[in-house]
Amino acid sequence: MRAELLAVGDELLYGDIVNGNAAWLGRQLADVGVDVATSTVVGDEIETIATAIRAALARADAVVLTGGLGPTQDDLTREGIAAAAGVGLRRNDFLEAELRRRFQAMGRDGSALPAMNFRQAELPDGAQPLPNTAGSAPGVRMEIGAGVVYAMPGVPFEMTAMFTASVLPDLLRRAGQPAVVVHRVLRTAGMWESVVAEALAAEVDRLAPIGNPRIAFLASGGQTRVRITARARDRAEAEALIAPVETAARAALGAGVYGGDEDSLESVVLGLLGARGATLAVAESLTGGLLAAALTDVPGASAVLRGGVVSYATEVKASALGVDADLLATEGAVSARTAAAMAAGVRERLGADYGLSTTGVAGPTEQEGKPVGTVHLGLAGPDGTITRSVLLPGDRPRVRTNAAVAALDLLRRTLAGLPDGDLVTGGERTSGGSRD
Amino acid sequence: MRAELLAVGDELLYGDIVNGNAAWLGRQLADVGVDVATSTVVGDEIETIATAIRAALARADAVVLTGGLGPTQDDLTREGIAAAAGVGLRRNDFLEAELRRRFQAMGRDGSALPAMNFRQAELPDGAQPLPNTAGSAPGVRMEIGAGVVYAMPGVPFEMTAMFTASVLPDLLRRAGQPAVVVHRVLRTAGMWESVVAEALAAEVDRLAPIGNPRIAFLASGGQTRVRITARARDRAEAEALIAPVETAARAALGAGVYGGDEDSLESVVLGLLGARGATLAVAESLTGGLLAAALTDVPGASAVLRGGVVSYATEVKASALGVDADLLATEGAVSARTAAAMAAGVRERLGADYGLSTTGVAGPTEQEGKPVGTVHLGLAGPDGTITRSVLLPGDRPRVRTNAAVAALDLLRRTLAGLPDGDLVTGGERTSGGSRD
Repeated sequence: MRAELLAVGDELLYGDIVNGNAAWLGRQLADVGVDVATSTVVGDEIETIATAIRAALARADAVVLTGGLGPTQDDLTREGIAAAAGVGLRRNDFLEAELRRRFQAMGRDGSALPAMNFRQAELPDGAQPLPNTAGSAPGVRMEIGAGVVYAMPGVPFEMTAMFTASVLPDLLRRAGQPAVVVHRVLRTAGMWESVVAEALAAEVDRLAPIGNPRIAFLASGGQTRVRITARARDRAEAEALIAPVETAARAALGAGVYGGDEDSLESVVLGLLGARGATLAVAESLTGGLLAAALTDVPGASAVLRGGVVSYATEVKASALGVDADLLATEGAVSARTAAAMAAGVRERLGADYGLSTTGVAGPTEQEGKPVGTVHLGLAGPDGTITRSVLLPGDRPRVRTNAAVAALDLLRRTLAGLPDGDLVTGGERTSGGSRD
Repeated sequence: MRAELLAVGDELLYGDIVNGNAAWLGRQLADVGVDVATSTVVGDEIETIATAIRAALARADAVVLTGGLGPTQDDLTREGIAAAAGVGLRRNDFLEAELRRRFQAMGRDGSALPAMNFRQAELPDGAQPLPNTAGSAPGVRMEIGAGVVYAMPGVPFEMTAMFTASVLPDLLRRAGQPAVVVHRVLRTAGMWESVVAEALAAEVDRLAPIGNPRIAFLASGGQTRVRITARARDRAEAEALIAPVETAARAALGAGVYGGDEDSLESVVLGLLGARGATLAVAESLTGGLLAAALTDVPGASAVLRGGVVSYATEVKASALGVDADLLATEGAVSARTAAAMAAGVRERLGADYGLSTTGVAGPTEQEGKPVGTVHLGLAGPDGTITRSVLLPGDRPRVRTNAAVAALDLLRRTLAGLPDGDLVTGGERTSGGSRD
């Protein structure tokens, strides 16, 4: 089975928007083993669209098209498909009734529907409409010769819903392939991407030798996601294919896995704290607010997070967090003992159950003779204070982002009683006291 | 002049990366009036590449190609161009010498250069190399019939440098068009995009009626950029075209313009403070660390920023910032007077010349009976404390981001003695005292 992607729209050619639809569709089709050899973008012109469709069908069995299905005069995909097939357009009674119903549902007179909107009720003669569950423009399915064209709206959330519900099942049926695709995502923190890939290499060969399920690694923002994709005749069969791979992957990745597709590291950490009725405060130096900003991005964070202190100037570490001035003078602002004192200080001053801290060298230049990427983390809680040290690669933004991830992961692993991650290069328990 | 874009790489077809190069090139070509009717992506296959080049040259005068120029065996663009032209590959002595020189410059024996790397010294017979100032893979310029193919590396920063230095001037020469393109960017804050566009509408018609210079608006992250693009025979002529438009645009936008292309709002604010030897501290509620994180993203921020307090819990506003508990009880955490007290409190407690604060409702639900988007800003300085109130549209992330931008813009306008921005719905001077 070979497919081609075709996107219609001047705004794509002019670079006003990036063709993210093609990347998403490319991943979906690769996941189910459909070969995509060419992806094309053309402007809003009937003959150009028709020529591109004919050229694609000369090379492939199916054309997956996005864009140009709206009601305005520069939406010409319907006309382009009709021209490629050598047929005319025909008003579809069902679609027309549906349009009137939608218009009336908005409290307006159905007989006053602007004539332009009726264009969305027209289909190339012989085509079938594809339902749009997320918007008004129906999709189009049109057989031309031995091939097929699927046209979907360019709006990403309308397109993805229509592809999953209508296009993919039909495409797989035509290919004689199973009709359901299920993804499972495992999210990891505290592991290098290469370590994640190596940990799973043997399992990939053993459990997914023929590419179903298929395993992919996606690294971004200091975290690595593992995506397991299975295709099967129905959901139960797909789940049965995924289950042993997921079990093996979780075993191989161990404490590195913090959650699934819907989770974020911040939401998992807030959930662990919320479940035990505990509160958190953060003290940041090199992350400079990133840690607090990530936590407060989660709606409802206020139930757990009391707040934070960004102690950027060294004197602020002493005045706002109570870090001992002698300690700062002898060990420096970038040290494990300073991280411990920051965590204990913010825990006490903001009245939280846990205090989490970061200090280090974000760059671009070294500081106190310590190299860029040096990071010390502190975690103070009811049972005392621990520190962890990591050496992070990359430029200033990457060091800062990864330091915030490492701090959240330290808190997650500590709360869950899990061992340290791969990135840790040193650490100790620096005090055993409690706040009260 | 008609051009087509062609990108080579399996990773684009599979959706592992998005084709951002096509969007960037589309904007560049639209800016200089070169028409792009089709943009294509093909995989790493010689015959597919050759077929795509031939098809593009049947429709257009030039093909702008990216990707497939590296040293490995799946980099097949050179072979694809040769096949399209019906010629062989030929080792280029100049490129070979250059490769050996680079290899030796890395401290390695030039005679031990891996054979695979020599592929980068091969060109289709009759082609000219295009210099790569940012990487090792040279570009290729090849005339085929009456058309021309420009092939550039897929790595964005290598591609953009090569396009600007070599491809665009050659393309414009062939088109009989001026050979230099100059951009000027004005960055604005505190203005709605529609207001920016309206303010310039008359100037666009008056000063740029024939599309040279061309004016574009780009809105993101709560800010709007205005890009003025001129094409001319040389840089001086382009600058002379831009100058009156830039002067008129600056006059029309007034205090909204905070800087040019290389600036960020954070760096401009830190620069204004640094120039007068002043320091800053921030107190954040709804922005939850975003303001501090934006400021500390700028290298060297530590010379100005003493630090910040994220006072997420209401009690922390009292305990860490000294906001009066009665005030919090009567007016609420989301109020102009609380913003003023937060700013004055963080200024005093962190020993800074200026204190800047945010409080408000980020959503998803209302708070204290105040709607999502309600934001109060406070700014305490040597001459007293002022507040500003804004009502921001959008969801939780947008309200938070725009609130941080509004706070920085308040500080910028106050330091520079400029009037308030469009977004301000209320404000007052709440106290006249100084810290000491």
